[in-house]
Amino acid sequence: MPIRVDHAERRSALADAVWRIVRRDGVPAASVRGVAREAGLSMGSVRHFFATQDDLLDFAMREVIDRAGKRIEAGAAARSAIAAAGRGVDAAMALLEQSLPLDEERLTEARVWAAFTAQMLSHPGMAAIRREADEGLRTICHDSLAGLAELGDVHASRDLALETERLWALLDGLTFHLLLDPVRTSADVVRTALRIHLGDLQGPAPG
Amino acid sequence: MPIRVDHAERRSALADAVWRIVRRDGVPAASVRGVAREAGLSMGSVRHFFATQDDLLDFAMREVIDRAGKRIEAGAAARSAIAAAGRGVDAAMALLEQSLPLDEERLTEARVWAAFTAQMLSHPGMAAIRREADEGLRTICHDSLAGLAELGDVHASRDLALETERLWALLDGLTFHLLLDPVRTSADVVRTALRIHLGDLQGPAPG
Repeated sequence: MPIRVDHAERRSALADAVWRIVRRDGVPAASVRGVAREAGLSMGSVRHFFATQDDLLDFAMREVIDRAGKRIEAGAAARSAIAAAGRGVDAAMALLEQSLPLDEERLTEARVWAAFTAQMLSHPGMAAIRREADEGLRTICHDSLAGLAELGDVHASRDLALETERLWALLDGLTFHLLLDPVRTSADVVRTALRIHLGDLQGPAPG
Repeated sequence: MPIRVDHAERRSALADAVWRIVRRDGVPAASVRGVAREAGLSMGSVRHFFATQDDLLDFAMREVIDRAGKRIEAGAAARSAIAAAGRGVDAAMALLEQSLPLDEERLTEARVWAAFTAQMLSHPGMAAIRREADEGLRTICHDSLAGLAELGDVHASRDLALETERLWALLDGLTFHLLLDPVRTSADVVRTALRIHLGDLQGPAPG
């Protein structure tokens, strides 16, 4: 008599195993073999869900997008209240910080993200999900700036498309530095840099 | 009778092979096997110089640092003249642009750099050379800002250490976006974003 397996439950258990490994041992340890060992399953049953490490990373990357989306959604009401009180920069900071690896959970996510990007640079076929995620971050940057502009917290002479590129690049650079050297590039440094960046936009565009 | 091999010459030929492959087929193709094939040598003779792909990447990374250093040195006199003429931002732009992948040669370098960073995230033992390179870029950011401050082109209220972090993150983020999607993040967009960034520093620090 074949054993019935609840697929959703098993997939969720494998997901937990992937993230435990990434957090504890880093992304390279999250191989199909490593995940099977962590979850106490055979290679074959893991392969049923994730045939290759690329599949694992793809799954983990979708989780990053999903988790960030949920965090952003969860804070929406609080941010609206802050913005309604005329504190536009605070509201924008609260939104933008959700995309930065400023705590252990988001640092793990950023490690997965970086591993995925590295895979993508090697396998251009995997670019779709990375682009999807990029588009998400870019939209957050654009919407933050558009919101600030509406409140009069971005000077009317600023080119929003260009400022979106600049803010987006700054966020990706800060993420990268938090990942590479979180001692030097501390959460405090990152928050202050971001606040100054948004503050500068209240002045007229130079040139 | 053993054949005499000029080691420096062979190493230089292998270096050329590595870079040709990276430019044509991407970093993953620059394996020991790929380099041997490209250079028309046996695996064994390539292994004499580069035992593993990590060694190849290490070598290629040192080349990136070396080439960037030479470009920066080569433009020093021109930049001094521009700065002496009171065009501090132009001089800083000329320096900072040397670190950005704004042409085919530097795009290849950035691909090697990204591949190396990916390796490094997997093998923390390889972090030393990446840190060395980071330190170089950080120093360029700091020196550019210090130069601008001396010319009065960075407002006295600005925190140079913090602005160094912010400019450095911006440069790494722009590099990343040029690498991932050079159509959307064009060289023009990058140059304009950088110029606006430097222009903003002429105003007082917000807050």
